[in-house]
Amino acid sequence: MSITQAEIKRIRSLREKKFRDAYGLFVVEGEKLVQEALRSDFRVEGVWRREEIGDAAMERISQLSSPSPVLAVVARPEAAGPVLERGLCLALDGIRDPGNLGTIIRTADWFGVRTVYLSDDCADLYNPKVIQASMGSIFRVRAAEADLPELCRRVREAGMPVYGTFLDGRDLYREALSAEGLVVMGNEASGIRPEVAAQVDRRLLIPAAPGSGAESLNVATATAVVLSEFRRR
Amino acid sequence: MSITQAEIKRIRSLREKKFRDAYGLFVVEGEKLVQEALRSDFRVEGVWRREEIGDAAMERISQLSSPSPVLAVVARPEAAGPVLERGLCLALDGIRDPGNLGTIIRTADWFGVRTVYLSDDCADLYNPKVIQASMGSIFRVRAAEADLPELCRRVREAGMPVYGTFLDGRDLYREALSAEGLVVMGNEASGIRPEVAAQVDRRLLIPAAPGSGAESLNVATATAVVLSEFRRR
Repeated sequence: MSITQAEIKRIRSLREKKFRDAYGLFVVEGEKLVQEALRSDFRVEGVWRREEIGDAAMERISQLSSPSPVLAVVARPEAAGPVLERGLCLALDGIRDPGNLGTIIRTADWFGVRTVYLSDDCADLYNPKVIQASMGSIFRVRAAEADLPELCRRVREAGMPVYGTFLDGRDLYREALSAEGLVVMGNEASGIRPEVAAQVDRRLLIPAAPGSGAESLNVATATAVVLSEFRRR
Repeated sequence: MSITQAEIKRIRSLREKKFRDAYGLFVVEGEKLVQEALRSDFRVEGVWRREEIGDAAMERISQLSSPSPVLAVVARPEAAGPVLERGLCLALDGIRDPGNLGTIIRTADWFGVRTVYLSDDCADLYNPKVIQASMGSIFRVRAAEADLPELCRRVREAGMPVYGTFLDGRDLYREALSAEGLVVMGNEASGIRPEVAAQVDRRLLIPAAPGSGAESLNVATATAVVLSEFRRR
């Protein structure tokens, strides 16, 4: 299988969000991620291997500083819209760092959270750093953009609690946690924004050790601690 | 306060580990981190502010793509050697990613772990990405390089358990965890190396949700889940 100049140009354009949006496509690299894409429900548009297209072409299409031996172009799933799901779901309010976003999706997958809702100012889900950090979980966890205040209202109307972490929340380790509901995690610097916080009816705190000088946890780390508590109940 | 060409050259050299090692110095940037350095026991060699030295000089000494308004050069603490400590300690076996290392130090600080032992192939503790990700915890948590198999032996001889996470370990949520001991976390790709694993007498597993397709957790995330379990006991 060879590659045309037009294909190279199109694949390279997917480094930019505007072209990912326009074409509805994104790039995954590396043997493991490409295998995960092929096994998933996602439609794979094409797979390019270094041994078939040569080092020079691979270097041009790869987004990594050391090009991997294989790259796939994958179609995004249809945006399903925020259908309300029973079970435990996650809502991310302005998670800006792609590494954090990918790690949170990986963590959600591990702990059995099947749907992650994103505010429109989160990092782009199809940013290559998000894909890499998700370690393939991007193909298993459903991610949907949502108006978070509205989503929270609907979750509560459906009789489920909305959780969030706050410095003045209640000790996570001593709270009774439910099997269903929504957990909101906020922006790296500013936390959950006020319009969303107003909809949180179960305010939680991950208590620091007495005398700790740390002011906060990294948001991906905090998400893991919270989901672990739900999982262990 | 102005800055000389020789100072600029010396500060720039601290981007490289060999010069950080040779001078015993490292750089911190940003108002919050510089304040933490000044409040800490670390000796601060100098502080440079943009309004004093000008934009051009700041751009030359800064290691960030957008230079922060303030930069400090800080002396490393004396390497104390791996004095055995009571309480819960952490040992990192080949953590290569600077972001992971910094995040783990921040997490250790939050959960009250005061000493983190590092194998000699971990990322450099004074790498700017480690410092940034630690969010100042680098100034509060004692980090010491150690021969991990030897350290584990000494911990066990002192009557304390050595914990580690393994895919065939025992369910973390159902184990009785002690207030003292050592928790070993392994390399991002290959986990805990065999010579160290042989010294772990309490093998733990963070259980995935039934049906999860994820193969593992990010190591900083896994560290947070494990330390949270010790903290909540």
